[in-house]
Amino acid sequence: MKVGILMGSKNDYPVVKRAEEVLDGFGVEYETRVISAHRTPSVADAFAKGAEAAGIEVFICAAGKAAHLAGVIAANTPLPVISLPIKSSTMDGLDSLLSMVQMPKGIPVACVAIDGAENASLLAVQIMSGKHPALREAMRAYKAKMEQDIIAEDKAFQIEKAK
Amino acid sequence: MKVGILMGSKNDYPVVKRAEEVLDGFGVEYETRVISAHRTPSVADAFAKGAEAAGIEVFICAAGKAAHLAGVIAANTPLPVISLPIKSSTMDGLDSLLSMVQMPKGIPVACVAIDGAENASLLAVQIMSGKHPALREAMRAYKAKMEQDIIAEDKAFQIEKAK
Amino acid sequence: MKVGILMGSKNDYPVVKRAEEVLDGFGVEYETRVISAHRTPSVADAFAKGAEAAGIEVFICAAGKAAHLAGVIAANTPLPVISLPIKSSTMDGLDSLLSMVQMPKGIPVACVAIDGAENASLLAVQIMSGKHPALREAMRAYKAKMEQDIIAEDKAFQIEKAK
Amino acid sequence: MKVGILMGSKNDYPVVKRAEEVLDGFGVEYETRVISAHRTPSVADAFAKGAEAAGIEVFICAAGKAAHLAGVIAANTPLPVISLPIKSSTMDGLDSLLSMVQMPKGIPVACVAIDGAENASLLAVQIMSGKHPALREAMRAYKAKMEQDIIAEDKAFQIEKAK
Amino acid sequence: MKVGILMGSKNDYPVVKRAEEVLDGFGVEYETRVISAHRTPSVADAFAKGAEAAGIEVFICAAGKAAHLAGVIAANTPLPVISLPIKSSTMDGLDSLLSMVQMPKGIPVACVAIDGAENASLLAVQIMSGKHPALREAMRAYKAKMEQDIIAEDKAFQIEKAK
Amino acid sequence: MKVGILMGSKNDYPVVKRAEEVLDGFGVEYETRVISAHRTPSVADAFAKGAEAAGIEVFICAAGKAAHLAGVIAANTPLPVISLPIKSSTMDGLDSLLSMVQMPKGIPVACVAIDGAENASLLAVQIMSGKHPALREAMRAYKAKMEQDIIAEDKAFQIEKAK
Amino acid sequence: MKVGILMGSKNDYPVVKRAEEVLDGFGVEYETRVISAHRTPSVADAFAKGAEAAGIEVFICAAGKAAHLAGVIAANTPLPVISLPIKSSTMDGLDSLLSMVQMPKGIPVACVAIDGAENASLLAVQIMSGKHPALREAMRAYKAKMEQDIIAEDKAFQIEKAK
Amino acid sequence: MKVGILMGSKNDYPVVKRAEEVLDGFGVEYETRVISAHRTPSVADAFAKGAEAAGIEVFICAAGKAAHLAGVIAANTPLPVISLPIKSSTMDGLDSLLSMVQMPKGIPVACVAIDGAENASLLAVQIMSGKHPALREAMRAYKAKMEQDIIAEDKAFQIEKAK
Repeated sequence: MKVGILMGSKNDYPVVKRAEEVLDGFGVEYETRVISAHRTPSVADAFAKGAEAAGIEVFICAAGKAAHLAGVIAANTPLPVISLPIKSSTMDGLDSLLSMVQMPKGIPVACVAIDGAENASLLAVQIMSGKHPALREAMRAYKAKMEQDIIAEDKAFQIEKAK
Repeated sequence: MKVGILMGSKNDYPVVKRAEEVLDGFGVEYETRVISAHRTPSVADAFAKGAEAAGIEVFICAAGKAAHLAGVIAANTPLPVISLPIKSSTMDGLDSLLSMVQMPKGIPVACVAIDGAENASLLAVQIMSGKHPALREAMRAYKAKMEQDIIAEDKAFQIEKAK
Repeated sequence: MKVGILMGSKNDYPVVKRAEEVLDGFGVEYETRVISAHRTPSVADAFAKGAEAAGIEVFICAAGKAAHLAGVIAANTPLPVISLPIKSSTMDGLDSLLSMVQMPKGIPVACVAIDGAENASLLAVQIMSGKHPALREAMRAYKAKMEQDIIAEDKAFQIEKAK
Repeated sequence: MKVGILMGSKNDYPVVKRAEEVLDGFGVEYETRVISAHRTPSVADAFAKGAEAAGIEVFICAAGKAAHLAGVIAANTPLPVISLPIKSSTMDGLDSLLSMVQMPKGIPVACVAIDGAENASLLAVQIMSGKHPALREAMRAYKAKMEQDIIAEDKAFQIEKAK
Repeated sequence: MKVGILMGSKNDYPVVKRAEEVLDGFGVEYETRVISAHRTPSVADAFAKGAEAAGIEVFICAAGKAAHLAGVIAANTPLPVISLPIKSSTMDGLDSLLSMVQMPKGIPVACVAIDGAENASLLAVQIMSGKHPALREAMRAYKAKMEQDIIAEDKAFQIEKAK
Repeated sequence: MKVGILMGSKNDYPVVKRAEEVLDGFGVEYETRVISAHRTPSVADAFAKGAEAAGIEVFICAAGKAAHLAGVIAANTPLPVISLPIKSSTMDGLDSLLSMVQMPKGIPVACVAIDGAENASLLAVQIMSGKHPALREAMRAYKAKMEQDIIAEDKAFQIEKAK
Repeated sequence: MKVGILMGSKNDYPVVKRAEEVLDGFGVEYETRVISAHRTPSVADAFAKGAEAAGIEVFICAAGKAAHLAGVIAANTPLPVISLPIKSSTMDGLDSLLSMVQMPKGIPVACVAIDGAENASLLAVQIMSGKHPALREAMRAYKAKMEQDIIAEDKAFQIEKAK
Repeated sequence: MKVGILMGSKNDYPVVKRAEEVLDGFGVEYETRVISAHRTPSVADAFAKGAEAAGIEVFICAAGKAAHLAGVIAANTPLPVISLPIKSSTMDGLDSLLSMVQMPKGIPVACVAIDGAENASLLAVQIMSGKHPALREAMRAYKAKMEQDIIAEDKAFQIEKAK
């Protein structure tokens, strides 16, 4: 159970870190790399092609602006690739979103929300849980806990208001 | 190996049919249902909750406009959910895209391109191939064939131009 | 005369509080709950279905990003549902606006402006005043006062400028 | 039980007609008028001010481009006003949507989807059913029928596919 | 030579003030009023209808969000109306821009850039200079000075860089 | 009383013709020219600079895509310039709208709606009527007739419905 | 003097053909290939790396949707790369435009308008004319002819109108 | 080897400075000028027409809002023109991007990302390297160094994480 996390620049790490934390919570191993589709194309190619042998089951690719990283990885592996569009200083993330979600026919990429790092990891867990039943149970527990957290948040809110 | 395909209205079937055809090519079984998040909420709930027991491994949810179908299913299952935004008569599909891709923290949905039905199914195959190694091989073959097809298309184009 | 106010997360409360204050001004009772369409779907369902019996006449549903809360409530009640799109950190609120206003045929939702909390409550008052004539008079007075306030603001501005 | 339906131009009638048909189904009376916020401002004012006396309980205002009709009516009545943005030949309806949904504080307008005529009327029915319990029951029946229709559509689809 | 400046709220004054300063520079008189299309519709109507008699030759109408002010004034006067869309806290001003520039056939409004207060006044001066030849000369001088300012700015920049 | 109408390409004439027809209705003379800011910059410059001497009082500049024509003319004349953004085959006219309306400080351009040719001419008439009182009266009559036309349209619609 | 023209799919040829015709007019050689960044990544890499040796001086890369072709080529060559975004069936070309123009720091791509095939080739000619003075003269002549064409178009239009 | 850098206002210099620094790194000479398409049209014309004689080989034109500078220069020179859209206080740079990238047929402009100053200069270097082989080698080295930098950044990141 290993996720390959790629980010186009170390600047994306504050967002990517939240993805790592979710995987930590599920006890899922990951390898986080700084790899650029445009600046280190050979490294990207090599990593994509060697991933299966290295035990990676899913990719999470985080990038901003004209974000090609997920597409370049997806072109070179049969593994599922999750794309995580990063909001940068212009265009409010619309550029990275469209560069990632509007993939042409034949090379799918699973896109999550702009800066939606937690969901990228939760999706990775859901994908891997087909093969790893323990992860499915962990996901079920995660959802149950999340439900209880909101219910508790609501209760605390009612008490606070009642004062 | 079974995919649950849901569409919000039978009007979405011309797009959804292309998703079915891709799954047919991989020999993957699917169950296609007309279920609306808003008009048949109980049916949607029941289907989501019963899916695992019914052998479904991945969902593909196709819907247009304020497209909540994928989110509603994802709220009720630990299985991975692929969202397929459908272009309808206004807003050029931007409404369904944003309603599907911008999911809040905790409930991931794997979004593909607007009307990107083939990619929804290819992604489903990639997801299931963690558990089913034969599907991974089939995906590898699919990618190789796709590459050969483009190379052949290019050759035919060169010959045509040389005339 | 009771409004059911739902917010997808307690983070939305600074906006929602402005809605409560308007209802306070009209002497309209309300029940504010933290309920998430995605994280507590059963609670949302139960609340929607039990609302009429609990004396709720109108809903105000506040949510951000892919904001399905209003739609999920509207799917489960014949009561009118007002949607209040919340601006979050990306996309400038366009995602929540389109997720709420572009509802498909059959399940209407009454959408107000992004972060337009006051208008959500004023609309709730207008809706309830069909049954409660005193509210209609209060609304008439509210509009008259608002007119006088602007006229006074203009006068103060003229005086200030004349100095 | 009477709805005031206003359209900015007779060109909007093909969309507006669908709103009338929904009201016909509920046995709700309506008065449909061609009134322009910009070209017949006095008529708009007079109609808004006289509506209550004329028995109108809710307004539906349909207009395209910089669509001010709903706002102008809302400025002159304490009755609830539903805005129906019409898609015209440029901007895909985004202009009329924003002109209608982004109303400033103090003057609420209940916006539905671009060209969403049926929902405008369903919302009008929901609003009026606070005062008219029979309408609430009719709405409950409408929702039940809609659910049955989708279920039937799904069944027919399954039978068709099984052939 | 008098311009009627209207703003929907006193909050718009920091932008509007820049419009006043330009008019001051040309020695053009103006009357600035806080008038809301939605909250003080009668005042708006009365002001629009009385403007010609009061010596006003052009209007500048500043408003944000669903900005109807310019349209409402234009509906009630044959005088030219300049619209100045104000950027507010959501949508980056796109809502006010489209609400002002996309006016339907028959009621023109002269739209300038979002927050483009100086240009609103320069346009007012250009419009009035048809009747007032001295203003045309002043505009010619203004343009010549602006040209000289940029040339001087460029020269200063060259000198600074040469250091 | 003469308007200089410029279009970037003869392809824009179907839209521009509607502007001419409005001016014909007011008995206002015009000179329509095919002049491109980019392809015939010297002609554009010369025309702008010679316009006043040639009796032109207002410009209408129609162009599509990155529409610089109005800005280039405005840079070279103290006369008021109306910009008419033309919708072309991509971007739904948003490109020409923003290229025309978002003019930088110092060089105003009066922008009307995308393809809003009639309003461009009506605005030209309003601008010229400061100097030509007969035009103001004609505009007043135009507005009155427009009001009567809508009232008649409404009446005809009522009669048609009553059948 | 040779341009490498790449298109992501043969479907793009109707647009690309217009680029070829412009190069034909300048007597510039070109090699047009069907190469997909995603489906034939190795071919794309090889072509980019071998281009200089094959005498290519500039690239034109045409692609739609999440258009990564130009970026992938630019990552693998020091030659200038022109990107030509193609409008496909959804999003009006905004997706391909942003995927191409918003390239991250370090890997420039020269973007032209959506479907702007002629300009892609004219830009290629301008780029190559640094080395090939004859091309510069040809470009000068092209611009002069274009100017004359518009002037002639204007004259023909005047004559036609005078009839 | 000289680049003509133009900016519409000295306010753009913080962005433009980054373009200069890249050229400094390549030992490429440049002349940076404050020239406005709208406020100093004659200076812009003269500079464009005299550029070739002054040894300029490529232009970089930086401007915000309705950014016509690149187009105006391109209209008056056969040299390649790079446009650098600047993000200003409204519209997130979309206005300047579309004003620059959507150039009509016949007058190409090479557009880079909003605020993408480094890429503007790298593109200029790539364009000039057709004539100056030493620049091509420098670009090759630049790309190699950039690759090594990312690889080093990745290594440092791995070490940091391993702690």
